[in-house]
Amino acid sequence: MINNEARKSEAKAWFEALRDRICNAFELIEEEFAKGASGDLMPGRFERNAWTRKAKNDDPDSGPGGGGVMSVLRGNVFEKVGVNVSTVYGEFSDSFRGQVPGTKDDPTFWASGISLVAHMCNPHVPAVHMNTRHIVTSKAWFGGGADLTPMFPENHHDDGVRFHSALKAACDRANPDYYKRYKEWCDEYFFLPHRDEPRGLGGIFFDGLDSGEWKADFAFVRDVGEVFLEIYAHIVRGQMNREWTDEERERQLIRRGRYVEFNLLHDRGTKFGLMTGGNTEAILMSMPPAVKWP
Amino acid sequence: MINNEARKSEAKAWFEALRDRICNAFELIEEEFAKGASGDLMPGRFERNAWTRKAKNDDPDSGPGGGGVMSVLRGNVFEKVGVNVSTVYGEFSDSFRGQVPGTKDDPTFWASGISLVAHMCNPHVPAVHMNTRHIVTSKAWFGGGADLTPMFPENHHDDGVRFHSALKAACDRANPDYYKRYKEWCDEYFFLPHRDEPRGLGGIFFDGLDSGEWKADFAFVRDVGEVFLEIYAHIVRGQMNREWTDEERERQLIRRGRYVEFNLLHDRGTKFGLMTGGNTEAILMSMPPAVKWP
Repeated sequence: MINNEARKSEAKAWFEALRDRICNAFELIEEEFAKGASGDLMPGRFERNAWTRKAKNDDPDSGPGGGGVMSVLRGNVFEKVGVNVSTVYGEFSDSFRGQVPGTKDDPTFWASGISLVAHMCNPHVPAVHMNTRHIVTSKAWFGGGADLTPMFPENHHDDGVRFHSALKAACDRANPDYYKRYKEWCDEYFFLPHRDEPRGLGGIFFDGLDSGEWKADFAFVRDVGEVFLEIYAHIVRGQMNREWTDEERERQLIRRGRYVEFNLLHDRGTKFGLMTGGNTEAILMSMPPAVKWP
Repeated sequence: MINNEARKSEAKAWFEALRDRICNAFELIEEEFAKGASGDLMPGRFERNAWTRKAKNDDPDSGPGGGGVMSVLRGNVFEKVGVNVSTVYGEFSDSFRGQVPGTKDDPTFWASGISLVAHMCNPHVPAVHMNTRHIVTSKAWFGGGADLTPMFPENHHDDGVRFHSALKAACDRANPDYYKRYKEWCDEYFFLPHRDEPRGLGGIFFDGLDSGEWKADFAFVRDVGEVFLEIYAHIVRGQMNREWTDEERERQLIRRGRYVEFNLLHDRGTKFGLMTGGNTEAILMSMPPAVKWP
């Protein structure tokens, strides 16, 4: 494994700092909404729970360590939003070596990242996912992405344009080729073949990012996190006070089923996490709070 | 592919006849419950929808044909119960050849079966799954199983004993070795490693059944279907009039999440079906009507 403790701790510190900024920003939205609402709503607050990674199913290869912190808010705007940070390290078992770059001759790895999924109370507020991560084996790279999932995609043209513009700006600041490539990667990745439908309005998705300039790559990853927070908070504020009907709520609960199907059938992070002894509660934090398959 | 049209049509006819008997029996339960309830409940009725198998994603290998019928009842005892029968045939694509017995030199197959999943209104009535099938390639075999999933397993000792006794009797009539083997297979199969918990109280699971006596194997498969119907109807009647609390309903919705996790992460039938151009609506009929991951 590449030994660069300074970079590792810098990346880890960033993911945790971004988590703190996101949690603060979302709590502010909860407060604004509670103030604006008639009646006395209690604004939602994040609760944090730390977990420690341990060997699972007595498989010593899944050790040895690290852990993470789950932050969850259940509120009046955010029905359930989970923001997980984790930093884990150890050795890949034989079955995973070769599947992960840079582990052929040396199975040791270190990985740190932030992962966020928000399911909203109001069916007019799009759900969202954002994740960025830094992985170190005998190689070192960044990955991540963000995608927007409105319940009624046909009514969210402007939100989609704004979301993509913000991510494109971050991409363009790093490399004029990134946006096109990462947008297409996102469209390809967040697609449900059995439904023949995309998960939502897309966004960007990238993995294996190692341009040779660690500082520039890290700056891009930070930028993605920052523009995500800014644009998503803006989209939430723009929609959270709209009225909705029981029928719209029903449609929201059904569309959430697609989210579940994608994450359990296709999402690599979910499957990889569950199979490598990751923390089940943290990984499945992405599941919507209430879902229907009528 | 083995050419024995008489056997194929006999098996297909049985799965359809069993479907009819199950649908009738469940509608009778709905009627009994509606009569016993105060107020004027409308007893649930099965609705049927036929589907035709067609090539998916322009993949000619997923053709050519067959289809099925979905029967769904949404009632006052059965919140959602789906009974699917399907008969499909064609050629496996290269990626599946070798994974399926008897397809190495000849990719043609024929498969027919019945599949049932019931999610119940009352949290005290266990959910259930039953499936039997006949598959023909250059080999021919039966598979199937049934397993019981109470929401509060600790309160269903007697139901579990009854369910297992009934299935054991069917196994014993065919072969004294079956029950032990098929019960263990079931325990192993319906297990959620990421939760470190079984799906429910188990039952039996078998595949690749070809004893050399087609008639005997087919008789066993019919017997499994019949004892399943008898014992499950008995269990439903025994629990359907119990009162339940909001808290118990909440716990039911959460436990249903495990059902979703199992079916999308692990169930071979689900994954196989979705990947081979099966009918998505029919395959995902197993999804619970309402679920929570709070």
